[in-house]
Amino acid sequence: MKSLQNLFDRIIQRVNINLRELNYDVTPYIENILPFEKLLKFYAFYGITPHHPLNFVFRQSNLAGSYFLGRCRVSNSILYKSDIRGDELKKEGQVVKYDRFDIKVSQDEAIHIEDSILVKTLVHNFSHDPESLEQFFISNTISAHYANIHGSPTDGSFLGPMATVDLTTMNDCVIGAFAYVQAGEISHLNIDPGTVWVRVPGVCNFLYHHPSERLSRYIFFAPNMQPQGLLMDFVEKHKAAFQKIFEVVNIVPTVEVPQNASVDRFAVVEPKTRIGENVLVAQRAYLQNCWLGKGANAQENCHIINSRLEGNNVTAHGAKIIEADMGENVFVGFNSFLHGRPGSRLTVGKECIVMPHTIIDIDAPLTVPAGHLAWGMINNQADLEANSISLANLSKVNSNFSQGNMVFEGSGAAFVEAFKARIHHILEANGAFYDGVNNKGHAQKNQNISFNTIQPYPEGDLEGVYPTILIQP
Amino acid sequence: MKSLQNLFDRIIQRVNINLRELNYDVTPYIENILPFEKLLKFYAFYGITPHHPLNFVFRQSNLAGSYFLGRCRVSNSILYKSDIRGDELKKEGQVVKYDRFDIKVSQDEAIHIEDSILVKTLVHNFSHDPESLEQFFISNTISAHYANIHGSPTDGSFLGPMATVDLTTMNDCVIGAFAYVQAGEISHLNIDPGTVWVRVPGVCNFLYHHPSERLSRYIFFAPNMQPQGLLMDFVEKHKAAFQKIFEVVNIVPTVEVPQNASVDRFAVVEPKTRIGENVLVAQRAYLQNCWLGKGANAQENCHIINSRLEGNNVTAHGAKIIEADMGENVFVGFNSFLHGRPGSRLTVGKECIVMPHTIIDIDAPLTVPAGHLAWGMINNQADLEANSISLANLSKVNSNFSQGNMVFEGSGAAFVEAFKARIHHILEANGAFYDGVNNKGHAQKNQNISFNTIQPYPEGDLEGVYPTILIQP
Repeated sequence: MKSLQNLFDRIIQRVNINLRELNYDVTPYIENILPFEKLLKFYAFYGITPHHPLNFVFRQSNLAGSYFLGRCRVSNSILYKSDIRGDELKKEGQVVKYDRFDIKVSQDEAIHIEDSILVKTLVHNFSHDPESLEQFFISNTISAHYANIHGSPTDGSFLGPMATVDLTTMNDCVIGAFAYVQAGEISHLNIDPGTVWVRVPGVCNFLYHHPSERLSRYIFFAPNMQPQGLLMDFVEKHKAAFQKIFEVVNIVPTVEVPQNASVDRFAVVEPKTRIGENVLVAQRAYLQNCWLGKGANAQENCHIINSRLEGNNVTAHGAKIIEADMGENVFVGFNSFLHGRPGSRLTVGKECIVMPHTIIDIDAPLTVPAGHLAWGMINNQADLEANSISLANLSKVNSNFSQGNMVFEGSGAAFVEAFKARIHHILEANGAFYDGVNNKGHAQKNQNISFNTIQPYPEGDLEGVYPTILIQP
Repeated sequence: MKSLQNLFDRIIQRVNINLRELNYDVTPYIENILPFEKLLKFYAFYGITPHHPLNFVFRQSNLAGSYFLGRCRVSNSILYKSDIRGDELKKEGQVVKYDRFDIKVSQDEAIHIEDSILVKTLVHNFSHDPESLEQFFISNTISAHYANIHGSPTDGSFLGPMATVDLTTMNDCVIGAFAYVQAGEISHLNIDPGTVWVRVPGVCNFLYHHPSERLSRYIFFAPNMQPQGLLMDFVEKHKAAFQKIFEVVNIVPTVEVPQNASVDRFAVVEPKTRIGENVLVAQRAYLQNCWLGKGANAQENCHIINSRLEGNNVTAHGAKIIEADMGENVFVGFNSFLHGRPGSRLTVGKECIVMPHTIIDIDAPLTVPAGHLAWGMINNQADLEANSISLANLSKVNSNFSQGNMVFEGSGAAFVEAFKARIHHILEANGAFYDGVNNKGHAQKNQNISFNTIQPYPEGDLEGVYPTILIQP
């Protein structure tokens, strides 16, 4: 175990050096949340298909329970039950448009994780940094449970539990629990827990703060403790169901899956679930008594329970939908928690956009009208009115306006258009529009993946450290 | 599947080119015995421990169901459910005594398998070829079910089912079904099925031929067919029990295993089995209602059923012991089939040596007296008398003698001494003499191994071909 402890200490030191200007010491935040005995227990695994790029290099790391796809290099790092998807990376020769530049990608892109600790973190997509198109780097970084690093190269940063950085390059920042940041590029910032911030430089800016007292019921993180709150309890409650799918080598599907849909063998699908055409169910998704219409997707770490999704629904990484009826084309962003109850169902009308990190938790029936944007903390009708706007009205906004805890600046139309374009792209990439010939996406390409397992040295000085592993086409 | 078919065709062609002088075409022998659909189905796996060397390189191969330990390179080959143990290879700097030479090993030895097809074949130990100390090569070679390649580099050869080459370098040879060869170095020979041949050049020579008609009841192999006979039926009958241990990730031991013993997680241990101290049970061993005394070992592909082994017993690769009582220090060689029956038990007295590829299959009780060498085909008392000799008497032989189908030349004492030294070495290497401090062997070092699984591309042109995999310390 000696090498593993040294590795752990070394990463903490590196992150603290990076965060010295913010006067931030990660030690008390990370020390208790990484279960060393489990670093020895869980196998990691990587997928092999002819449809994905393949190139893995793992050195001097612990990878317990982590999932890898595509092109990834990991060195001197601890990735505990993380999910590293290098299957949407850029290819050599591809041209990326950015601002007034057409930039040619000089070699196949890879995810490079170095000197970092990621706990149950999802790393996905490709580097959106025009300065770093060939390398989606994550270095000197620690992230806690269910953080998302999405298209966001990051150096010297700390992400709290359920924090998301999305399409943002990040240097030496601290992102508080349940904060969501999509801001292009940020440096030396300490973002408060529960911040929801979307900025398109020169175009628009959306800023919301979850009321901290109300948020702390759902998620709370402080030094020398595990993350706490209803969101953590909810995830913990469903953890046991995953155990059985990791214990067996092959999974016998329990529901019917159409030929043009796919359900990952590491997803949990409980009875009374219906999978529609072109549906994608990703690894570590949890489905129970739910109806997924054509083209719906259930992304990593999401939970969909006792709910109906009409079709072309995006349920983003870590989103939870319980006792709800979702119209067609509804988008639910990262880590959102939509919690109806048996007698108090939540209805979300078609074409709605539920912002990332939204909490809708209700005791009486509630309906988000079709074509609305909803955000923030919503426990009742009054909250909904304060924290939503029709997309039509938002599109009319040309300068500043505020509503409740939210401030918006810039072009509402640009904001709405950008969001719609992104949702369309997500559905397309996931295979929602496959017609039997064209528009193949993950739902069609992921049907047949082989998974190889990897484990660390079981004892001795190198206990818990994985050997050097290179996998190439 | 295209690449895999090309690979298959290419290997057959290479082997046929090597065997052109013997006018031997392997095509009809191999074409039907390799189940292509299973090449896609079974995962391969390699072990990681701090006690073993670690260095795997797999390229352009199918490895379905194969087990790897230590240092192995495999390229352009098909290893179907084979067992490649590179954990006893020589280390750099080690000095090997051979004849009048002290040869220094110039680099760590590795097993190199190239352009070969091995079916359920065990490859073990290290190269006994003084010309090739750093490389235990197997090239342009095809071997059929349950063959053993033991310390024997081989090029351009074909081994029939249950054939064994032991401590022998082999060039362009054909080894018939159930033939055993230990002869130093052989070239361009076609060895008949059921031959048992031990030669120490200049010292002694032991040669026996199983009567072919009687042997064909036990094993028979001809073009365009699967290997047949009681031995194949026996192995097939117990195959289903292995399925369950390959389907789960972790095995819960069903019997008590002393701290100084080890039972591989890929062994089958059925109820009423007792594991003594310092016992080693290797992968793919099958135990059922048996009593293993201190220091006994059950090697790869062996079966021990309704039997008692008093202690320090060697049950070599592929040996089968059913309804038998084995005294202390009994050695049972490769692929031997000792088959008593409930009312007709077989008793083998202490210190006996049962030669490799011996068949004892009885309908009435039979006892091999203590301190005897037994060989060949034994179905009753008369056969036993023709096919055994006391070690004391054999030690007195100084020139030629024959008995039944067996011919012996040279020094009987040297033969017995060499055999005893080898048995002692096997027990020592397997940990039979461990006293809590000294003489650690496999039984102690193999207690805690992590296994990683690997699988091929699941579809496309490369269907069935494994990606390039490099594993290093």
